[in-house]
Amino acid sequence: MPSAASALKRLLVGRPRRSEQLHETLLPKRIALPVFASDALSSVAYAPDEVLITLSVAGVAAYSFSWKVGLAVVVVMLTVVASYRQNVHAYPSGGGDYEVATTNLGGLAGQIVASALLVDYVLTVAVSVSSGVQNASAALPFLAGRETWVAVAIVVVLTTLNLRGIKESGTAFAIPTYCFIAAVLGMVAWGLVRFFTGGLPMAESAKYTIAPEPGFAHGLTGFAMVFLVLRAFSSGSAALTGVEAISNGVPAFRKPKSRNAATTLLMMGTIAVTMLMGIIVLAHLTHMRYVDPHLTDTQLLLHGRPVGAGYDQQTVIGQLGRAVFSNFPPAFYFLIAATGIILFLAANTAFGGFPVLGSILARDGYLPKQLHTRGDRLAFSNGIVLLALFACVLIIAFQAQPTRLIQLYIIGVFVSFTTSQTGMVRHWTRLLRTETRPNVRIRMQRSRAINTFGLCLTGAVLVIVLVSKFLAGAWIAIAAMFVLFLLMRGIRRHYDRVADDLRPDERADTTLPSRVHAIVLVSRIHKPALRAVAYARATRPDVLEAVSVQVDPEETKRLQEEWDRLGLPVRMKVLDSPYREITRPFIDYIRKVRRKNPREVITVFLPEYVVGHWWEQLLHNQSALRLKARLLFEPGVMLTSVPWQLRSSDRIVGKLRDGEPHEVTLPETKTP
Amino acid sequence: MPSAASALKRLLVGRPRRSEQLHETLLPKRIALPVFASDALSSVAYAPDEVLITLSVAGVAAYSFSWKVGLAVVVVMLTVVASYRQNVHAYPSGGGDYEVATTNLGGLAGQIVASALLVDYVLTVAVSVSSGVQNASAALPFLAGRETWVAVAIVVVLTTLNLRGIKESGTAFAIPTYCFIAAVLGMVAWGLVRFFTGGLPMAESAKYTIAPEPGFAHGLTGFAMVFLVLRAFSSGSAALTGVEAISNGVPAFRKPKSRNAATTLLMMGTIAVTMLMGIIVLAHLTHMRYVDPHLTDTQLLLHGRPVGAGYDQQTVIGQLGRAVFSNFPPAFYFLIAATGIILFLAANTAFGGFPVLGSILARDGYLPKQLHTRGDRLAFSNGIVLLALFACVLIIAFQAQPTRLIQLYIIGVFVSFTTSQTGMVRHWTRLLRTETRPNVRIRMQRSRAINTFGLCLTGAVLVIVLVSKFLAGAWIAIAAMFVLFLLMRGIRRHYDRVADDLRPDERADTTLPSRVHAIVLVSRIHKPALRAVAYARATRPDVLEAVSVQVDPEETKRLQEEWDRLGLPVRMKVLDSPYREITRPFIDYIRKVRRKNPREVITVFLPEYVVGHWWEQLLHNQSALRLKARLLFEPGVMLTSVPWQLRSSDRIVGKLRDGEPHEVTLPETKTP
Repeated sequence: MPSAASALKRLLVGRPRRSEQLHETLLPKRIALPVFASDALSSVAYAPDEVLITLSVAGVAAYSFSWKVGLAVVVVMLTVVASYRQNVHAYPSGGGDYEVATTNLGGLAGQIVASALLVDYVLTVAVSVSSGVQNASAALPFLAGRETWVAVAIVVVLTTLNLRGIKESGTAFAIPTYCFIAAVLGMVAWGLVRFFTGGLPMAESAKYTIAPEPGFAHGLTGFAMVFLVLRAFSSGSAALTGVEAISNGVPAFRKPKSRNAATTLLMMGTIAVTMLMGIIVLAHLTHMRYVDPHLTDTQLLLHGRPVGAGYDQQTVIGQLGRAVFSNFPPAFYFLIAATGIILFLAANTAFGGFPVLGSILARDGYLPKQLHTRGDRLAFSNGIVLLALFACVLIIAFQAQPTRLIQLYIIGVFVSFTTSQTGMVRHWTRLLRTETRPNVRIRMQRSRAINTFGLCLTGAVLVIVLVSKFLAGAWIAIAAMFVLFLLMRGIRRHYDRVADDLRPDERADTTLPSRVHAIVLVSRIHKPALRAVAYARATRPDVLEAVSVQVDPEETKRLQEEWDRLGLPVRMKVLDSPYREITRPFIDYIRKVRRKNPREVITVFLPEYVVGHWWEQLLHNQSALRLKARLLFEPGVMLTSVPWQLRSSDRIVGKLRDGEPHEVTLPETKTP
Repeated sequence: MPSAASALKRLLVGRPRRSEQLHETLLPKRIALPVFASDALSSVAYAPDEVLITLSVAGVAAYSFSWKVGLAVVVVMLTVVASYRQNVHAYPSGGGDYEVATTNLGGLAGQIVASALLVDYVLTVAVSVSSGVQNASAALPFLAGRETWVAVAIVVVLTTLNLRGIKESGTAFAIPTYCFIAAVLGMVAWGLVRFFTGGLPMAESAKYTIAPEPGFAHGLTGFAMVFLVLRAFSSGSAALTGVEAISNGVPAFRKPKSRNAATTLLMMGTIAVTMLMGIIVLAHLTHMRYVDPHLTDTQLLLHGRPVGAGYDQQTVIGQLGRAVFSNFPPAFYFLIAATGIILFLAANTAFGGFPVLGSILARDGYLPKQLHTRGDRLAFSNGIVLLALFACVLIIAFQAQPTRLIQLYIIGVFVSFTTSQTGMVRHWTRLLRTETRPNVRIRMQRSRAINTFGLCLTGAVLVIVLVSKFLAGAWIAIAAMFVLFLLMRGIRRHYDRVADDLRPDERADTTLPSRVHAIVLVSRIHKPALRAVAYARATRPDVLEAVSVQVDPEETKRLQEEWDRLGLPVRMKVLDSPYREITRPFIDYIRKVRRKNPREVITVFLPEYVVGHWWEQLLHNQSALRLKARLLFEPGVMLTSVPWQLRSSDRIVGKLRDGEPHEVTLPETKTP
């Protein structure tokens, strides 16, 4: 491993932390709120926009539905929050929905929930970062046209911050999140004050009308309109992602973990619905018009004519801020900056949740074991990197366009909501079967009632989202979940098979082989070869022989002569190789020896020399490496490398002495 | 190694050949001529074009120089052929110019020649294939615009043919080469007959005049004209590449190798100059006009006006064929087809020469040893692949345009001609110092005279080429040679240092260590671990202990209990790892043991399990692999892998049993 790479890693990630420092990374409520709730809070920066975009298809008249749609989202939000407060008390271990589903509904349900959540975490990163870049590019015009790569760069920055460890990220992210909350609530309050005092200006887009799409030319009719409102509601439900982030993140809270998490959940829910309704109501009061950014030039009309390419449509928050703070511009700039930043921080929620869930799934054998281990800085490094990779793929594939990405979104969250609520209902029912204390029974029954209501509501929303968004993009998310689901089952099957293969048979596996037959592979008389022979002799095997593979008869003859001259008490055997290769004749010989004495163990001594630079390795044949790789597949053969360190290898040793710890890895942690 | 890849290799390359089959690949003269001389012969398909293009800069009047330039090239060609006939007799081993230079002028000269030749081999492939594609795209219009990738595809096909072995390529390439010779010589003969009978039509371009470039508007004046004629001569000298291919390829000839090679050389020279002069004379007789293909629309004039984009300029051979065979079109098509094919075959000359030279350089320690070894089919596979890679890089960089590539060309050949002739003069002078037999002396003196004349002439040409082409592109070739030269010296220095490091100290290296300290690394109680302990016990070390690195205290406690329950006579030692890594605590422990007993040898037993699919490996931690790689750098430590084969590994063993030989490699052939 090149030293420059290590230095860079230290610079970006920081010094490694000892395992005992783990408790230091626990979060107080005031930090946990911004860390885990920034996703749900930030969604007010795009959820109202998507509601208005969807409704605008039917023209300005449809906007009268906006606050009703908003109210519906609020109801769902409060229900989900109430439900999840039961979850965090009942399952404080951070398994979240996955644990609830597995425990109460079995492994299959758990895997469905897990794949849904993993997909949605990736989408959270992609949507939030893309939306943040879209916001920023309105303020910083030089970003326009480069959105995709800016978004990827921001994912990289977030990854680095998270690899440094969650506590530092929390501190760094708290201030902007609180700024955002203050800015939005401040705007809502000031806007309402100005409205009631009669001084609230109209939004800059209030002067336009909207041309409805052909199907809606005759106003709000029947089924098409219902479908449209339901789609608007689905898009608005983006505000609900992130609720489960807190329930999956319970272990990161300070004690009492469950109570702190429940309180944080309630705080988050209250703040989120207040902001969401505030924005929708203000948009209504300022007569805002907001359409698909790709269609501004045809859909917006001024005096009955399309506005054309000249109009630059600001986001909903942007237009509101300009109107409300028309008499105090600094507040407007503060709002815009806070909005831009929080959207990037929102992605951080997923960086908190995805790796923890990945680690739990890895522990249970559903994902590769590498995801189970904590990195140098006690963060789950592998999970963080994996999340970043998938998010970048999505961002690049959808060119960082939030309106396209949002079609894939929230399906996963509602799959997991619904399954988890089903699990919770079962949980309470099971407990009630044995519980006798009346006051506890009452509390449990109340909890079950809450979860049952949550189940009905989230189930209904899931159906609505599925129906209204399937063709628009949700099928991609569903396909991804399905692939992930199959993958997890395949991985688990593999681990089970391996565990089965490895289960020791104590008597057979502790029996010593009858004899040891040592073979030293010699191709030249040099230091490593003589060392290998000396070491092999020191292990006092029952049989010891040197073996050379003959590729060039003349060379072999010289080798044999030199060998004889040394006068070692070891016979040299020459294997013929008509096809000028080493591996096959050697393997054939080993098999012959094994057939003759099946109870013997063969130990092959390979003289090797090691060099210090990667380019030096290019200059030496890799056949020893290949032979080693191949010999691993022969039963009853031990493989002993006798390395000789060339002078250039010193730099590797020196580097390690510098106190540079290696990548953290647990070789074989428990498989179930 | 995936089985599909092996199957594909077999399909493309054929079954492996035994070393004894090597003599079968020797070539009779009638096959050696097309194999080694197609480069020199095919250059008549572009050398006359380049001469005319260069002269056209000064307008039609300059064409009067064309046959004089042609004659100059013929003189150089015959001189070089005569000189090289001396070389192949004096140095029949195939080292060619490299050997001549090294033996007579020392290693430095040899390395200069070698780098020059290697660069020119690559250019031969790039120029010939590009020119062939240019020709073909005139006949097959759908190739236009895709020349680069077609050229790369053809290089791939040539590579495959050559990996199959040289004899089959020889047979496959003989017929088209002879067809080309017959077609060109037939055209020249028939053209002259028609000329003397007064029936030779004009070339289709005869009706045009050429607008001279600004500097030459006033006709053929002074220095600029001299420079232009010299550049035309330099371009025409492209006909000389390939002469040294025969001298480097002597070992591939049937016995008597030298005489056969010398005869083939003479045949080639005679045929080449006849064709070259024939084409230049015919072009003169048919009043052909030929300009830079990129400038046809401005430089060609009809009735004093530029012809514009409409004119599609055919190659010189194409225009001649059309004129000469105007009364017998089938012969014209035969000519065009043969020309197209031979240009691809010309590249094959380099595929014959480059790998042999590379192998010799590798033997001498100037290039990586892997180039020294013959592949499954007895061809020097690695050299062939390397040549193909570099040629593809050039083709892609210069978009397969022969006129641009030719500016880099032939500088290397003349560096090597000149150096080698200097060497030959020295060679004869040295021999003459001791030779006393009068008739032998006379023969030697004659040879020396020939080589001296060759030296003077090729030296002069080298200066001309250098001066007239340096800025046009030759500097790139010179830079490449320089880099290659430095690289070769660096590689040799590395090999020398390694050989020095590895030279055995017989007494020290055959002394047995005082004791063997065995350490089994245990992370879990499973089959591989128990096997490793049993095998380690079977080797009866002086000290045997199990070591476990503690990452998770609970897990370690469970492990310790299980270990105690097994009741093995082996103590388990637990190393603490505050940073959750395996390598460092383990290495630290080993160093401590070493410090206590420096004369002890430590043997580390690593339990491993092996899986059969690459994707299975992704599911298991690679920390064992990393630890192994790291332990190789610790002095006094042997590394014993005790593999346990999981069921899925059977497929690897099964595959090897199918009689699938591995890549051919000689691990450590002689270094000087």
